[in-house]
Amino acid sequence: MTSIALFTLTTTDPGDLGPLRTVLADKGCAPEDIVAVIGKTEGNGCVNDFSRGLSAAVWEPRLPAGAVTVFSGGTEGVLSPHVNLFVRDERDHPGFDRGLVAAAGRTRVLQPHEIGREAQLDAVTETVGTLRAELGVSPGDIHLVVVKCPLLTSDKIAEIRSRGEVPVCTDTYESMARSRAASALGVAAALGECDRPRALRALAGAEPVHSARASTSAGAELADCHIMLIAESAAVSNPLRAVHGSMADALDLAAVTALLDRIRAQGGAVRQIFAKAEADPSGTVRGLRHTMSTDSDLHSTRHARAAVGGLLSALKGDGAVYVSGGAEHQGPPGGGSIAIIYELPRPDEDGMP
Amino acid sequence: MTSIALFTLTTTDPGDLGPLRTVLADKGCAPEDIVAVIGKTEGNGCVNDFSRGLSAAVWEPRLPAGAVTVFSGGTEGVLSPHVNLFVRDERDHPGFDRGLVAAAGRTRVLQPHEIGREAQLDAVTETVGTLRAELGVSPGDIHLVVVKCPLLTSDKIAEIRSRGEVPVCTDTYESMARSRAASALGVAAALGECDRPRALRALAGAEPVHSARASTSAGAELADCHIMLIAESAAVSNPLRAVHGSMADALDLAAVTALLDRIRAQGGAVRQIFAKAEADPSGTVRGLRHTMSTDSDLHSTRHARAAVGGLLSALKGDGAVYVSGGAEHQGPPGGGSIAIIYELPRPDEDGMP
Amino acid sequence: MTSIALFTLTTTDPGDLGPLRTVLADKGCAPEDIVAVIGKTEGNGCVNDFSRGLSAAVWEPRLPAGAVTVFSGGTEGVLSPHVNLFVRDERDHPGFDRGLVAAAGRTRVLQPHEIGREAQLDAVTETVGTLRAELGVSPGDIHLVVVKCPLLTSDKIAEIRSRGEVPVCTDTYESMARSRAASALGVAAALGECDRPRALRALAGAEPVHSARASTSAGAELADCHIMLIAESAAVSNPLRAVHGSMADALDLAAVTALLDRIRAQGGAVRQIFAKAEADPSGTVRGLRHTMSTDSDLHSTRHARAAVGGLLSALKGDGAVYVSGGAEHQGPPGGGSIAIIYELPRPDEDGMP
Amino acid sequence: MTSIALFTLTTTDPGDLGPLRTVLADKGCAPEDIVAVIGKTEGNGCVNDFSRGLSAAVWEPRLPAGAVTVFSGGTEGVLSPHVNLFVRDERDHPGFDRGLVAAAGRTRVLQPHEIGREAQLDAVTETVGTLRAELGVSPGDIHLVVVKCPLLTSDKIAEIRSRGEVPVCTDTYESMARSRAASALGVAAALGECDRPRALRALAGAEPVHSARASTSAGAELADCHIMLIAESAAVSNPLRAVHGSMADALDLAAVTALLDRIRAQGGAVRQIFAKAEADPSGTVRGLRHTMSTDSDLHSTRHARAAVGGLLSALKGDGAVYVSGGAEHQGPPGGGSIAIIYELPRPDEDGMP
Repeated sequence: MTSIALFTLTTTDPGDLGPLRTVLADKGCAPEDIVAVIGKTEGNGCVNDFSRGLSAAVWEPRLPAGAVTVFSGGTEGVLSPHVNLFVRDERDHPGFDRGLVAAAGRTRVLQPHEIGREAQLDAVTETVGTLRAELGVSPGDIHLVVVKCPLLTSDKIAEIRSRGEVPVCTDTYESMARSRAASALGVAAALGECDRPRALRALAGAEPVHSARASTSAGAELADCHIMLIAESAAVSNPLRAVHGSMADALDLAAVTALLDRIRAQGGAVRQIFAKAEADPSGTVRGLRHTMSTDSDLHSTRHARAAVGGLLSALKGDGAVYVSGGAEHQGPPGGGSIAIIYELPRPDEDGMP
Repeated sequence: MTSIALFTLTTTDPGDLGPLRTVLADKGCAPEDIVAVIGKTEGNGCVNDFSRGLSAAVWEPRLPAGAVTVFSGGTEGVLSPHVNLFVRDERDHPGFDRGLVAAAGRTRVLQPHEIGREAQLDAVTETVGTLRAELGVSPGDIHLVVVKCPLLTSDKIAEIRSRGEVPVCTDTYESMARSRAASALGVAAALGECDRPRALRALAGAEPVHSARASTSAGAELADCHIMLIAESAAVSNPLRAVHGSMADALDLAAVTALLDRIRAQGGAVRQIFAKAEADPSGTVRGLRHTMSTDSDLHSTRHARAAVGGLLSALKGDGAVYVSGGAEHQGPPGGGSIAIIYELPRPDEDGMP
Repeated sequence: MTSIALFTLTTTDPGDLGPLRTVLADKGCAPEDIVAVIGKTEGNGCVNDFSRGLSAAVWEPRLPAGAVTVFSGGTEGVLSPHVNLFVRDERDHPGFDRGLVAAAGRTRVLQPHEIGREAQLDAVTETVGTLRAELGVSPGDIHLVVVKCPLLTSDKIAEIRSRGEVPVCTDTYESMARSRAASALGVAAALGECDRPRALRALAGAEPVHSARASTSAGAELADCHIMLIAESAAVSNPLRAVHGSMADALDLAAVTALLDRIRAQGGAVRQIFAKAEADPSGTVRGLRHTMSTDSDLHSTRHARAAVGGLLSALKGDGAVYVSGGAEHQGPPGGGSIAIIYELPRPDEDGMP
Repeated sequence: MTSIALFTLTTTDPGDLGPLRTVLADKGCAPEDIVAVIGKTEGNGCVNDFSRGLSAAVWEPRLPAGAVTVFSGGTEGVLSPHVNLFVRDERDHPGFDRGLVAAAGRTRVLQPHEIGREAQLDAVTETVGTLRAELGVSPGDIHLVVVKCPLLTSDKIAEIRSRGEVPVCTDTYESMARSRAASALGVAAALGECDRPRALRALAGAEPVHSARASTSAGAELADCHIMLIAESAAVSNPLRAVHGSMADALDLAAVTALLDRIRAQGGAVRQIFAKAEADPSGTVRGLRHTMSTDSDLHSTRHARAAVGGLLSALKGDGAVYVSGGAEHQGPPGGGSIAIIYELPRPDEDGMP
C-alpha cells in the first residue's frame, strides 16, 4: 500500500518532460517513487491520435518498472494538456487518520481478437483484484480505477482475419468503444458492482450495468491494459481524499455540485476531477436533439469532452481537468462516472483535521 | 416599436419548417407578425456551412418583407439546433409597465472588397441607428444587437482581384473574423460604446474596444448584413425582460451567475441566452495553455462554442442555447458578450408584477 | 424511351441554379425535358452534408414530376462542384444508328427499419426493372444505374427503436454503407449480374458480388430511392455512347486507360466519367498500408474520392468528374465501378460515323 | 561527397523502427552510414501533427550526428506511410560513370520571430551553400533540396509578443506557409534560381519566383531547419539518377509523363517521386472552381496531397510516394516541384550502361 501525493502539471506539448523535471528537482521526488502518470494529451483522442504515442514514448523509458502511463487524448475547448503524477508520499502528515493510496499494474498482452471481448473483461477483473489486494482495501474504499486499453487498427483487423478469427467489429473507431466497455465491465465485476455473468450479459448489450468508478480509454499505443487504482485507506495518513459519483447526463450540474458541496463541507480544496463523458446514445439530451452522433466531421467523443470539459473547467476554475470521452458502462448512458480528489486543510492550521 | 413574444423551438434538421407551422397553428401568430428568425443550425459554423444556407432557403420565402433571418452555424457538444422566433405580440399583458421590443432590418449590399472594412462598419452603424430610431429607445435601453454579415469565398476573392482591389485577407476562414469585427464595431459606434474614430482604430487592431451587446456572425449565404435589435421600452407592456453583460473568459461562471441572480431576484424565468465565445487569443485561459488555436482539424470557433455551450446549457438546463463562435470586439478578448431574455411572472399570479 | 443530351455545368455553390438557367436560355431546353440532375456538391458527403439538401431544396421544385435528382456530396481535392443535366433530346442527329437513352424514377418510401435490408434491395430491383421496361432495352444495353438512397440519422434510429424494431446498425455513418450496399445489390439483381438469393447472401456479407454498373450514394435528404438508368438503344439516334468497367483498386490506371482507348479508337470525346471509389477494406492497396480507415478526423469516403478524383480529373483534363465515395458491391472490394459517357464525332464532319 | 543508396520502406505506425532494423540487418548498412531519413507520416500534416514528432523522437537518437530527419505529415488517400533512407553507398558499381550523392545539415536555431522572414531565408541559403560545397557539385547538378522548417505555435506567438516583437502572422496554420515560403526562396537563392533581392521581394509577395527543386515542409517538432541535398556527380559511380521539373497544376499529367518518358528512354526504373502540391490560390484549376480553400473542415494541404497523391501513386504503381502539401514558391502557383529518383539497369545486364 502506497500513500500518494498528486502533482498536476501542464505540458507544452505531448513530448514535454518538464513535469518530470519539476517533480524530481522541485518537489523532492525520486524517479522510483512514481506510481502512475495519468495525462491528457492534445490529439483527437481517437484511433490516429499520436499525441498519446509520443507521450508514452518519452515518459515510459523514464519510469520505474511497476509504474504505468495512461494518456487520454483530446483537450477540446478549454481543456488544458497536463499530466497527473501520482507519486509515493513518504512524508509525515501528522493529524490525518487516513489518506489516499494508489497501485498500478498491467494485464497480460491481449491478442487482437480478444479486444472488446470476455478475455479482456476477465484480464481487467483479475488485475484490478490483484491491485486491490496489494493495497489491502475493500472494494468500497476504491474511488477510481483508470484503465488504458488497446484498440483495433486496420493492421490488427487484418491479422485477426489472417488467423481465421473474427474481430469484435471492423470499424476502428468503434473498436475503441468496445474496448472501453470490456474494461469498464471488468472493473465493475472486480469491485462487486455486478457479478461476472451480469457483466458478460452487459458486454453483449443485454443488460444495463455501469460502474461509477471506472474511467477507461483506448489507444493504439499499447497491447495490454494499464490500470491504476485510487482508494482511501486508514493504513496511511495524508491530506488527500476522494469522492465519486455519476453525472446522469452532460448537463448534470446538480450531481457535480453535490460532490463539491461534500468537499467544501470538509474544508477541502479540489485537486483534480476525473470525469467520463459521452454523447447520449438516445440522440437527445433531456429531450432535445443533439448532433454529436450525426456529425461526420467530428467524432462524438470530441464533442462530449468539449462540452463536459467546458462545464467542469468552469467549476474547477481552470482547464487542467481530466475529462475522457466515451463512457460505455461508466456511469449511466449519456452520463459518466466522476471522481474528485481533494485535499483537506492541515490540522495545525485550524486546530482540527 | 414592436412588442414581442419569443418562441424557442427545436428543429429536426436545417430544412425543418416545423417551428413555423407551430407558431402559426398553435400559437395564433400570423406570418406577417414575424420580426426575426434567429437560429442555430448544425453545420460547422465556418465558411462551408451549408446548413445556414439551407435554413435561409426554406425560411426566407415564407417571411414578411421586413423580417430578417440570422442562422448561426455550429451546435457542437450539447447544443441543440433550434430557432428563436421573435414575433409581434399584440396581446394584452395587464400589470406590466414595460416590455421587450424588437426591430429588424438590412444594410445595403456590401461589395466584396468592403467586407471587414470601414464601409461595412459604417453600414452597420447606420442601420442600427435607423432601427433604434424606429423603436424610439435610447442606446441604454438596448440589450442585444444580432448581426449576420457576409464573408469572403474563393470566388469573391477572385472577383475583388479581377477589379484590381485587395481583399481584407485571403484566408476564407479569417474573413469571417474580419467581418464579425467590422459589424461588432459598427454596433459599438451606434450604441455609443465608442466613437467612430476609435472604432476604426480598433478595426485596425490599434485599440481594445468591445461591445457587450453585439452578437455578430458571418456566412456565405448573404451579401448584406441582417440586423435585429432587442430593447426594453416603457411604450409597451409584456412580461419579457433582458439583462446583458460580458464573460471575461470561457470559464467565467461568476459573470453568468451574477446575471442569473438578478433574474431570480425578480422571480424571472430564463427564456433564452445569447452568448458569444472565442478561443482566447493569448493561447491560454487563466494562465493554462489551451489548444484551440493549434488544432488544424477543428477550427477554434467550434471548440469555443462546444465549451461555452456546455457550461451555459448546464446552467439553463437544456441545450437550446444560442452560442455563437468568434467574439471579436464582442466582450473582452477570450470572453464574449452575453444577453439573457427572461420572463417575469404574471402579476395576477402572485399579486404583484 | 428518351433520347438524351448531357450538359455538365459547374456551380458556384450548392444553391446555384445557374446551370438551369443556362440549359433553358442558351441550350433551348424546356423544363419538362429534364430527366435527371446528377450533381456533385461540396459538402463532406457524409451524414451531415447539407450541401446535398440545399441543392435538392432549390432544384426539386423546378423539375417536372417524373425527374429525379441525385446529389452526391464531396468534391475533395481537385473535384469541381457541378451538375450533369440529362435532358430529353428531340433534335435530329442524322447518321447515328443508335444513341444513349435515360429513364428516371423513384421507389416507394422506405421505412427507417427497412434501410440497408432486403426491403430496400427489392424496392430498387423493382424500380430498375420498371425503368428498363420503359426504355425497352435489355440488361446488357445498360451502362449505368445511379441510385440515391436514404440513411439513418439519430432521429430515425430512435423512431425505429420506439416501434420495437432494430436498426440495421446504430452508427449513422455506417448506415450510409449499408444503404449503398442494398441499393447496389438491388441493381445487380435487376441487371442479372446475380440472382436475388445471391444478392441477399451478399447483403449478409456471405458472398462477394458486385455490379460494374451501379453507382449508389446515400443521403439524409430523402426517404425513398432516386434512380436513373443510362443505356444504349437502337431506337434513337444521337452521338452519345457509353462504356463501363471496374477499377480493381484506386491505382488501377490500366482499367481506365483501357476504356479511354476504346473511346479514342472510335474518335470519341469524353463527356463525363462516373466512378465509385472506396478505401480498400483490407487496409492496404497493392500490399502497402493505407490510412483511410484509421483516420478519425476524416472519413474514408472523403479520402477515396480525393485520391481517385485526382487521378480521373488528370485523365479527363478537368475536375468536373463525378466521383462518389463508398463502393460497396460496386466494383470489386477496394475498387469501384466506372462508366464513361462520350460523344462520337458528327458523321458529316469526317464522312463516316 | 557521399555516394548514396536509397531504401524506401513502409512503416506500421509513426513509431515504427522496423525500417531501421531492415537496413541494418538485411541490407548490410551501418548506423553511421545513414545520411537522412525522409519520411511520410500519417498525421494531418498541419500544426498539431504529432505523428511527425513521434517519428522524430524514435529515430533521432539512433542516427549519427550529421544525419537529419524530415518527416512530412499527411498520407491522405492512397498514400502509404513510409521512410526513404538515404544511406552512404560504398559498394562498387562498375560500369557507371556517375551517380547520386547526398549531403545533409542543419541551420542555426531560428528565433520564433525569425520564422517566415529574411533571417530564415538567409539561414537556408547559407546551409544549402555549405552542403553544395561539401558535395563539390555545381548548382545545375542538384535535383532536390528537401527542407524541414519550424512553425509558430500559440506558445511561440506569445513568446514573440512578450519580447515586444511581432510574429510574421498570428494564425498557426498560416505560419506553416510562411515558413515553407522562406525556406523555398532560400533554396532558390542558393541554387541561383533567383538572386537574393528578388527572393526577398518574392517573400514579401511582390514577385513570382519559384524553385523547381525545393521541397519544404514545416513542423512544430524542430526549431532549426533540416536540409538534405540530392545531386548527380561524376565523382562517384552508382546506378541512381534523378530528374526534376514542375507540375503546372494538380492535373498536369503531361509534365509527369514527360519526366517518366525520359527515365524509360534510359531503361530506368522509378525508385521514388518527391512532389509538392497545393490548392491553386486562384480558387480554380483550369478554370473550374475547386473547394480546397473554402473547406473549413479540412485544410487545403490535405486536399492537395490526396489528389496529387492519387495521381502519382497510380503512375508509380504504389502509394509509397513522397507528396508534401503547400507548395509556396516550389513550382508555379497551384502546381509544384517534382523530382524523380530512378535506377539505371546494371550495365552487365544489357551490355551497356
